[in-house]
Amino acid sequence: MTALREHADLAAALHLLEWDQETFMPSAAVEARARQIGTLAALLHERQTTPGFLQLVDELAERVSELDPQQAVDACETKWRLDRKRRLDAALVRERSTIHAQARAIWVTARRDDDFAALAPWLGRIVEIERQVAATIDASRDAYDVLLEGYEPGASAGMIESLFGELRQALLPLVNRLRERLAARPLPAGALCGDFPLDAQRRFNQCIAAALGFDFSRGRLDEAVHPFTTGIGDDVRITTRYDARDLRCSLYSTLHETGHALYEQGLDREAWGTPRGASCSFGIHESQSRLWENQIGRSEAFWKHFLPNACEVFPGLVAASLDAVVLAANEARPSLIRTEADDITYNLHIILRFELERALLAGDVDVGALPQMWREKMRAYLGLSPDTDREGVLQDVHWASGAFGYFPTYALGNIYAAQLLRAARADIGSIDALVSAGEFHVLLQWLRRHVHRLGQTYRPAELIRVVTGEPPTPRPLFEYLEGRLAFIEST
Amino acid sequence: MTALREHADLAAALHLLEWDQETFMPSAAVEARARQIGTLAALLHERQTTPGFLQLVDELAERVSELDPQQAVDACETKWRLDRKRRLDAALVRERSTIHAQARAIWVTARRDDDFAALAPWLGRIVEIERQVAATIDASRDAYDVLLEGYEPGASAGMIESLFGELRQALLPLVNRLRERLAARPLPAGALCGDFPLDAQRRFNQCIAAALGFDFSRGRLDEAVHPFTTGIGDDVRITTRYDARDLRCSLYSTLHETGHALYEQGLDREAWGTPRGASCSFGIHESQSRLWENQIGRSEAFWKHFLPNACEVFPGLVAASLDAVVLAANEARPSLIRTEADDITYNLHIILRFELERALLAGDVDVGALPQMWREKMRAYLGLSPDTDREGVLQDVHWASGAFGYFPTYALGNIYAAQLLRAARADIGSIDALVSAGEFHVLLQWLRRHVHRLGQTYRPAELIRVVTGEPPTPRPLFEYLEGRLAFIEST
Repeated sequence: MTALREHADLAAALHLLEWDQETFMPSAAVEARARQIGTLAALLHERQTTPGFLQLVDELAERVSELDPQQAVDACETKWRLDRKRRLDAALVRERSTIHAQARAIWVTARRDDDFAALAPWLGRIVEIERQVAATIDASRDAYDVLLEGYEPGASAGMIESLFGELRQALLPLVNRLRERLAARPLPAGALCGDFPLDAQRRFNQCIAAALGFDFSRGRLDEAVHPFTTGIGDDVRITTRYDARDLRCSLYSTLHETGHALYEQGLDREAWGTPRGASCSFGIHESQSRLWENQIGRSEAFWKHFLPNACEVFPGLVAASLDAVVLAANEARPSLIRTEADDITYNLHIILRFELERALLAGDVDVGALPQMWREKMRAYLGLSPDTDREGVLQDVHWASGAFGYFPTYALGNIYAAQLLRAARADIGSIDALVSAGEFHVLLQWLRRHVHRLGQTYRPAELIRVVTGEPPTPRPLFEYLEGRLAFIEST
Repeated sequence: MTALREHADLAAALHLLEWDQETFMPSAAVEARARQIGTLAALLHERQTTPGFLQLVDELAERVSELDPQQAVDACETKWRLDRKRRLDAALVRERSTIHAQARAIWVTARRDDDFAALAPWLGRIVEIERQVAATIDASRDAYDVLLEGYEPGASAGMIESLFGELRQALLPLVNRLRERLAARPLPAGALCGDFPLDAQRRFNQCIAAALGFDFSRGRLDEAVHPFTTGIGDDVRITTRYDARDLRCSLYSTLHETGHALYEQGLDREAWGTPRGASCSFGIHESQSRLWENQIGRSEAFWKHFLPNACEVFPGLVAASLDAVVLAANEARPSLIRTEADDITYNLHIILRFELERALLAGDVDVGALPQMWREKMRAYLGLSPDTDREGVLQDVHWASGAFGYFPTYALGNIYAAQLLRAARADIGSIDALVSAGEFHVLLQWLRRHVHRLGQTYRPAELIRVVTGEPPTPRPLFEYLEGRLAFIEST
């Protein structure tokens, strides 16, 4: 459909405006850039909801039985997304994005000043308007489900509750074992800290991304304060950030974004602009980043392959043993800040947020009660509690941006990644053997065939079932994390 | 007008797509980028010619006597530009841009293979379609005038003929004197050649651009094969190119682009998106680049100020005398390639092109006769003649892009620059004294007040008359060039 490609081109221009804003844009251009982004976003919305386009989509969706399966996917998925959009009138959309923009600005100072009271009334308004948005899209369903589906089509709070409940039960004993291990003696986990000159880190990261399969003729690797990946049509750009004293900062950020980028570069180029050529969901996207960042990137096999190369680039590493480096890559401890959490404790940060936002949307919890509930849950799950809200409920921007239903996709990504990797292992044999031989392309080709190329042919849970033979389940993730913990306990 | 600002935001997004294409875009993204640019350009054209917008502009233009002078400028200039655009139907616009795109591709290989015959039929078709475009815009006027006005509003072939005739008569004896001087003994002009590490050049160029007044909080300096300047809303970006063996390559390219950028950064931000907040013409834009590149940047005063700084950055320069450096900055000799020409011979390259393209459009010359006429004119004006068409009629892309009427604006820029600088001198005293003291802001403020801030308040020739008290005249340029030649003769 020509119209879909036009929308995709407009979206690509928007993505370039946003990428440039975070990488190369001069500081004083920020106001004009916000206006340019606003203008293009409004134009894109307008084009996506012109009567002619809406009618065409409706007609195609009615004739779906006459279409071939691929066209049927495009027709149904386009209609589903469009229906969510068209039900919201312009006034509500404008009010919502104005409140989000204002609340984000308030959040910045509230976090800086550790002043939850300043943000609380805004959060209240946001919860109100998100409920209204959900009701406008579909008044017959649970508000949380409707919002969640915007990120994870087909998912429901009930499904998440069940997955997360099982995961939480499995993780709590692991965290206790981790705390016992740490109480017994400190982890000698400093092998990747020291002197890592930034230019050498840049070269090393480029080399790693390329080795994993990132195509630099159709992408770039740059720097940004908050690393992200963006697709600008046929051009996928990663950003990372550097710490001259800790190689893990740039490396694991690069691996994470490379995972996202390999997915984007693996989408079907022929179907570009249509649902079949677009990523499946936030959770599936996150599964690709987590798979490369954690399951591959923190494995002994990964370091077996890359340590000799790393020693060439960073002569200071020559003295470090493989075990010491792998332990440094798997350093774990309960901590307060989600974005700094290791992968054993990370999912509990997400479960906590899901429980709170779900209760908030349902009206079971007042905004004012969040800081105290946060502390109680942190103590229950990770055995520690923040002294300040800055390290607690104020740490993430998501709620102040109205992104309710977003957090679960992070943990879904971990769950899916472990399931996918287990299925890949059954298909192509030992992943460790391939990784330690540097044969990343075998795994990448498997992911391309079973995930990337399919786009939105299946909804995420269905995709997982089709590819792995099981519905979403946290067991493979749990087994993976238990392996990690066992390694830490063995040191 | 809100609509004008929306168009300007769309144009800004287009400029970013183009800037990125020439600087940071990965190689394989070229096809998708062309499509994105095409989509946004078509969308911009569509928005500029919606019935509602056309009607609004027509109504304002009818009520121009009731408007205040500034609104009247906006109404008249918007209508004038829009009238040119609306008369062309979509089919003609599409055919024209398709032919241009194809011919540019043909030109690339024709130049490479020195094969004018391959390009000739395309040039014939382009001349035909450009005549048709001109006739569609205004059948009552000379085609060349109509095309020229697209770059230089209010200019005419007659006015250019008169200016260029006078300039040619004055320049031919100068070129003869230059050739005699060169025949007598070689110019010792190598002081700016040697070993200039690229990182040091980058720092030096940043420092020069900042010293001239370029605001890096609202702009950048990057690298591109063909240097250019682009404005992305409130964010103006320069590019330059580097030669590790010749400092002049990056420096004079940076000075040229900084001149363009100072103009863009000096436009009235309050009037952004409207004619009053837009540059006046291609010729006036070029006057700003030429003024800083040549009249300021090649002066003894410039090097008096910057040589000590240059010696710190490039220790190899310490041995060079001020005279030797200034001579290197003013190296001149008749040569075949326009883009490499010094400023004494440069305008003759332009006059030659103007005479040929004018005759071509008028039907006085056939495309097939161009190579021979080119050789004859080169011999008459510069005393040399290209052995190949690659160094002759095939060297520029302009005609293959359909840009008839563009070349004159380069020489107009030189003419205007000399007139403006003479007027500035009368107002603010010795420019040399200011430049050698590094007080560039005095001249910049003068240009801001008399040129930049006015936008399209006046048509270019009128602007020159208002600011300098004289209509466009080549005499100040001639006096400047004679001074340059006298300096060369004195060495």
